[in-house]
Amino acid sequence: MDKSKRARVKELLTKGEPRDDVIVEGWVKTRRDSKGGFSFLEINDGSCQKNIQAIVDHSLDAYKQNEKKLQTGSCVGVRGKLVASQGKGQSVEIQTGELWVYGGADPETYPLQKKYHSLEFLREIAHLRPRTNTIGAVMRVRNRLAFSIHRFFQDRGFVYLHTPIITTSDCEGAGEMFQVTTLDLNQVPKDNGQVNYGEDFFGRKANLTVSGQLEGEIYAMALSLIYTFGPTFRAENSNTSRHLSEFWMVEPEMAFYDLDDDMDLAEKFIQYLFKDVLEECSEDLEFFNNRIDKHLIETLTHVAENRFERIPYSDAVHLLEKSNEKFTYSVEWGCNLQAEHERYLAEKHFKKPVIIYNYPESIKPFYMKLNDDGETVRAMDVLLPRLGEIIGGSQREDDLDTLQKRIKEKGLDLEEYWWYLDLRRFGSAPHSGFGLGFERLVQFVSGVENIRDVIPFPRTPKHAGF
Amino acid sequence: MDKSKRARVKELLTKGEPRDDVIVEGWVKTRRDSKGGFSFLEINDGSCQKNIQAIVDHSLDAYKQNEKKLQTGSCVGVRGKLVASQGKGQSVEIQTGELWVYGGADPETYPLQKKYHSLEFLREIAHLRPRTNTIGAVMRVRNRLAFSIHRFFQDRGFVYLHTPIITTSDCEGAGEMFQVTTLDLNQVPKDNGQVNYGEDFFGRKANLTVSGQLEGEIYAMALSLIYTFGPTFRAENSNTSRHLSEFWMVEPEMAFYDLDDDMDLAEKFIQYLFKDVLEECSEDLEFFNNRIDKHLIETLTHVAENRFERIPYSDAVHLLEKSNEKFTYSVEWGCNLQAEHERYLAEKHFKKPVIIYNYPESIKPFYMKLNDDGETVRAMDVLLPRLGEIIGGSQREDDLDTLQKRIKEKGLDLEEYWWYLDLRRFGSAPHSGFGLGFERLVQFVSGVENIRDVIPFPRTPKHAGF
Repeated sequence: MDKSKRARVKELLTKGEPRDDVIVEGWVKTRRDSKGGFSFLEINDGSCQKNIQAIVDHSLDAYKQNEKKLQTGSCVGVRGKLVASQGKGQSVEIQTGELWVYGGADPETYPLQKKYHSLEFLREIAHLRPRTNTIGAVMRVRNRLAFSIHRFFQDRGFVYLHTPIITTSDCEGAGEMFQVTTLDLNQVPKDNGQVNYGEDFFGRKANLTVSGQLEGEIYAMALSLIYTFGPTFRAENSNTSRHLSEFWMVEPEMAFYDLDDDMDLAEKFIQYLFKDVLEECSEDLEFFNNRIDKHLIETLTHVAENRFERIPYSDAVHLLEKSNEKFTYSVEWGCNLQAEHERYLAEKHFKKPVIIYNYPESIKPFYMKLNDDGETVRAMDVLLPRLGEIIGGSQREDDLDTLQKRIKEKGLDLEEYWWYLDLRRFGSAPHSGFGLGFERLVQFVSGVENIRDVIPFPRTPKHAGF
Repeated sequence: MDKSKRARVKELLTKGEPRDDVIVEGWVKTRRDSKGGFSFLEINDGSCQKNIQAIVDHSLDAYKQNEKKLQTGSCVGVRGKLVASQGKGQSVEIQTGELWVYGGADPETYPLQKKYHSLEFLREIAHLRPRTNTIGAVMRVRNRLAFSIHRFFQDRGFVYLHTPIITTSDCEGAGEMFQVTTLDLNQVPKDNGQVNYGEDFFGRKANLTVSGQLEGEIYAMALSLIYTFGPTFRAENSNTSRHLSEFWMVEPEMAFYDLDDDMDLAEKFIQYLFKDVLEECSEDLEFFNNRIDKHLIETLTHVAENRFERIPYSDAVHLLEKSNEKFTYSVEWGCNLQAEHERYLAEKHFKKPVIIYNYPESIKPFYMKLNDDGETVRAMDVLLPRLGEIIGGSQREDDLDTLQKRIKEKGLDLEEYWWYLDLRRFGSAPHSGFGLGFERLVQFVSGVENIRDVIPFPRTPKHAGF
């Protein structure tokens, strides 16, 4: 086979000038037999949503030999002439000269026959679901968003930082942690009745990270602008459409940024990603727009093109108190805003993304910078209509004394934070950062309702298959 | 402060036309006091290796107020005029009009005074070491390589895939695994004397992944071209300069690629990365070239510009047998090649990168495609002079019967591989892939000897601090 003739379906369909000799390899989506003595094969190679049509004459030897194998799901190669298509629905098609079958797919047992499959069912065959239109489209959009995240930060001089996955500190206390061990659980070594972690791999208790923020601050205090993009974990027994036990998080951290700079960056970031994906994944977004949410593209465009509303927490509480909405949870200053409150603000009141900032100190972690009022901290949350919170961030406390005081007030152990405190002891600087849950971003951009369908292999309570 | 005047040191030094009003914020590397009544501050913000020099007149009020705080390691901001420098070593410098100190660094306690610090010592202060020239340079090079990896694959239509970190299968058997659990190790629930994993978070025993390859194959059998870039883990008690318990791996997987295509891609990949980093990180590479390895840039250029040697395993064994080298381990057909053998081939014999392929079946995993000779498999290793193996890959076995046979022969449990076998049952295709250890790449490119110094927070036996 002359490998130089190989082309991907996307390339042929987008820049497809007719050419004499082209090879396409992929999976048969459907086959239609014509009475005129030929078949139409719809071939997909995952490069795009659309298939390329190959016309196979039944007089071809290869057709006769492989006729039975040419079923939905089989993997084939065709070689032939790329010509303008006479039929509807495609610009070009292949007049097949050669045909070969790599692997068949018995229609009796292959689960992905051409019919409707629920997303729930597809999760059970997570090894085959990437071959479906929906999951294929999700993963292309996910890919583009991931690359776009890197480009956004790289263009601005940020350094990509790999913060550790295994950690011996639970500094943030952001959630329940998974333990990592090499101890034999059938015979846990003990010392005075307690687990003897001296015998464990790291010589002490170790966990999976819940956030790379604190380590990110270390590098921001040297390289100024950094971002992380890696997996994080929560061992919470949450079976909802918005929670995963393993998910990817993006966490930029910026020296010399105050809360305003932080909010500016978060807004620019979201808008950059949306503009880019609207441009680069238009075919897949149209698919979602048709199948999942008729307002998807409109919503994404609106977010990309309009300034976000910014409102202090106190004003947001006022607004909610004065509204005539019936909320399940009542609102008063000092409370955590619930999803229903956030949705009201973003969807009903402002009808656009909202950034709420300056939250009560009492409901936020120790590391957020205390305002002069002594009651609020420089925290901010970005709320998107329909999805709710997509970004949470803050300016960090950079004053050593205040930070020590707050760690103690929160009942945490100062010694655990020795290195975090050192950052304020030596060359401290104002700095800020935020976190974005990557899967929630993919959910918003695709309109896909359940977060388990926007990650290749979801991990949730009782589920870690594949 | 007029934030629009802010600039990064790299920008000023590279495109630094004089300008009237500029703000720089960063950390003081050194301060020299002149008898003429002014001081030179060398300020670094991590954007590049070089510092920018700010000249501060002692008559400035801010200087008088902050004089004692202006020490090595303190964090400052200066505002002033960017002018062509009269002194040696820099093109431009700042005539300081305003000066402020964000945070001091007491010379009595700040560990990073201007003197030589061993890399071993710096590991103990991993929260401050990014402020050193060496670690700063390593992390900028690491960042560029990471981005370059994404660009290489994205430009070629590959989809970035996040394979799972927590896994319940030990399919590859590539190494010792860490266990992930939420069970209380003080009171492990048992059933008939054995751990009752029904009570664990995922309802069964779970581990940290050693490779994303098998899951990568799933997506290659749908999207054709994919790559992973994520953390992987080995719970091995290896205390060497080349082993980490947690490291990042890049694993592309390509449908319709045979072993030749796989080797072509691996070679292009390495050469692309080296060319890019030579261009984009010249300042940091020159630093490594001066400080660590006088032949570094020459070696990188040589690898980037010359075709790799390719040689079948059998021929490599012949070569080694015929050589007059004294090896610690003797060589015969069927043996694993040791580091000394690989070094001989790459450094002494061929004096360039070497790809060895078609290894004996008996020393390679079950998933590698069996050659027609029945004795060798389509495996390949890329060896670089000085570093040894940097890439290992193979064409995968795509024949269902052969694969089942080999799984059984290797003493593995067929049922564990149900989904992996399904990929050969439904629409099987020839496919190939490889793995690249990211930290080894950074080691090679920087010349840094110990792998613990090329990752922000190394995890090794008994070490998981920060």
